[in-house]
Amino acid sequence: MNPSPEPVRNVEGPLTIAQLAALAGVSTATVSKVVNGRSDVGAVTRDQIEALIRSHGYRRQRRPAKSAALIDVLFHELAGLYAIEILNGVEEVAREHRLGVVVSELGGRHVPGRGWIEDVLARRPHGVVSVFTGLTAEQTERLYSRDIPLVLLDPTGDPEHDAPSIGASNWNGGLAAARHLIALGHRRIAVITGPDHMEASRARLDGFRAGMDLAGVQIDPALERHGDFQIEDGLVHTLELMGMDQPPTAVFASNDGMALGVYHAAAELGVRIPEDLSVVGFDDLPMAEWMIPKLTTIRQPLKAMGAAAASAVVALSAGERLSQQRIELATELVVRGSTSPPR
Amino acid sequence: MNPSPEPVRNVEGPLTIAQLAALAGVSTATVSKVVNGRSDVGAVTRDQIEALIRSHGYRRQRRPAKSAALIDVLFHELAGLYAIEILNGVEEVAREHRLGVVVSELGGRHVPGRGWIEDVLARRPHGVVSVFTGLTAEQTERLYSRDIPLVLLDPTGDPEHDAPSIGASNWNGGLAAARHLIALGHRRIAVITGPDHMEASRARLDGFRAGMDLAGVQIDPALERHGDFQIEDGLVHTLELMGMDQPPTAVFASNDGMALGVYHAAAELGVRIPEDLSVVGFDDLPMAEWMIPKLTTIRQPLKAMGAAAASAVVALSAGERLSQQRIELATELVVRGSTSPPR
Repeated sequence: MNPSPEPVRNVEGPLTIAQLAALAGVSTATVSKVVNGRSDVGAVTRDQIEALIRSHGYRRQRRPAKSAALIDVLFHELAGLYAIEILNGVEEVAREHRLGVVVSELGGRHVPGRGWIEDVLARRPHGVVSVFTGLTAEQTERLYSRDIPLVLLDPTGDPEHDAPSIGASNWNGGLAAARHLIALGHRRIAVITGPDHMEASRARLDGFRAGMDLAGVQIDPALERHGDFQIEDGLVHTLELMGMDQPPTAVFASNDGMALGVYHAAAELGVRIPEDLSVVGFDDLPMAEWMIPKLTTIRQPLKAMGAAAASAVVALSAGERLSQQRIELATELVVRGSTSPPR
Repeated sequence: MNPSPEPVRNVEGPLTIAQLAALAGVSTATVSKVVNGRSDVGAVTRDQIEALIRSHGYRRQRRPAKSAALIDVLFHELAGLYAIEILNGVEEVAREHRLGVVVSELGGRHVPGRGWIEDVLARRPHGVVSVFTGLTAEQTERLYSRDIPLVLLDPTGDPEHDAPSIGASNWNGGLAAARHLIALGHRRIAVITGPDHMEASRARLDGFRAGMDLAGVQIDPALERHGDFQIEDGLVHTLELMGMDQPPTAVFASNDGMALGVYHAAAELGVRIPEDLSVVGFDDLPMAEWMIPKLTTIRQPLKAMGAAAASAVVALSAGERLSQQRIELATELVVRGSTSPPR
């Protein structure tokens, strides 16, 4: 119940991150980076902290008696099936460890407000899984100072992540989408991207471009459209694309929701899928199998990602160190009925 | 931290439910029924308990200092969009009261195992919202003995519910579906029901039958099909229905998932919606607006139901008594593109 760092003078035995930070006069985030073997800490600071660890030792500031049997999961919004898939993965691991899963959502914002962090500190969970959501440096710091581990799931792309993260191989997925369409004979291939500021979304686009480039297929800049992962984006862009003098014969929508929007535009225009237009999505949400025709898409193992993030939290809260700061799970092409050779 | 009922001798002031139960030699569920004005308690027992309340007084056994700032939500399974909608409603109320929302799921079972109840008792939430899920009498009893209130959302139909419950006016929804189709001129109307053991599902069917009956339209028993709320049920039954000598001109699917299955069967058979077959669903999940054509359906206010259940828990945990044991929120017909007059 004492939120301020423990006093550091005359401490016996190994020091916690908070104590090391106080002694070294640096932030707990910096100590955490050194402890976790991250490279982005200045040499002088690193040496100083490592000297302290050598002389005093290091211990995780875990107090299991005070930590509640909970794991916190923070979503930027609870909408659509991806949240359910991730939650199922977290539940699976939590059940195994008899942890309750506390779910919060930010109503679409990407950074939590003050109330959320206060509540987390008060309930003292084993740790926090943050989905598509960036904590501020101050919020991260406050979690670390209470030794509440944080794991990011598919982070939004801020290079300053201090925390371990779980993602999917988005770049490879974009590559696989391009290769599949090229192998079918498509050359005029449009892409509808997700938001620029999201790492996952950028990686999918880069992979797609690489696939086109490696196959020697030119990308027409007019066929690159910027979306925001909403169904409407797929609809609006496809209506525009199909109105061009030379419309595309295929579209790679970088999530399944936008692919559904492509279907709507096609229905509106009387364009047949896949005969007149091939469509590839990304995610493989349960709905992909129930679209008409069934959607060819890049499968992202959302449930496994949720489970991996929860497992990382459990490991960290037990005082273990993760072997990797960043885990990427494989994506995979699932071919169904929405792609065929161009006419 | 003392799980056994408090000693009841020489107690000063008003008694808790557990103390009243011990004095009267009855279960806490029985006392709870009396306290909440339920009619299903024998007259002798009721008089005895009321006499005790008159002489000692009654107080809720709430110990705010020991109760965690949590509310538990139990789903029978975390699948599909209905769970997300309900959760959003719970989150809204929880956020307002600074309560963390602990989500559990039973992997499709309808009764939780031993582990779940132990964990709930250990974490002492403000209360439990149970969605499509029945606790056993013993589990309910254990919650009550710790004064952890329980609110059922859309209960499975066990008439022995001790707990307050929140539902939607399913019967009225079924009635509205029948009336809409009859008003369009349909007479051969099929219905695909949900599971018989679910209250919600039975009420929808009864309302539908009433609508047919009140309009003087005969129901062909061959057009009544029993489903399990799965997409596949809509698919399989529609394939059969459309193979009949006199196929229906309209189908009422008693959830949106099965309505999606009807769409698949129609696509497979080359049957056009709504020209050849009108379809009405039930739920109005977000996907209903994105089906092609957009689905005419009965809107069930899932988010509002989640919010109402959470509000009831908050009220009960504050020692308030609910004015009603059962709250039904209104359903409403939403007409979109999947219904039209028969050809």
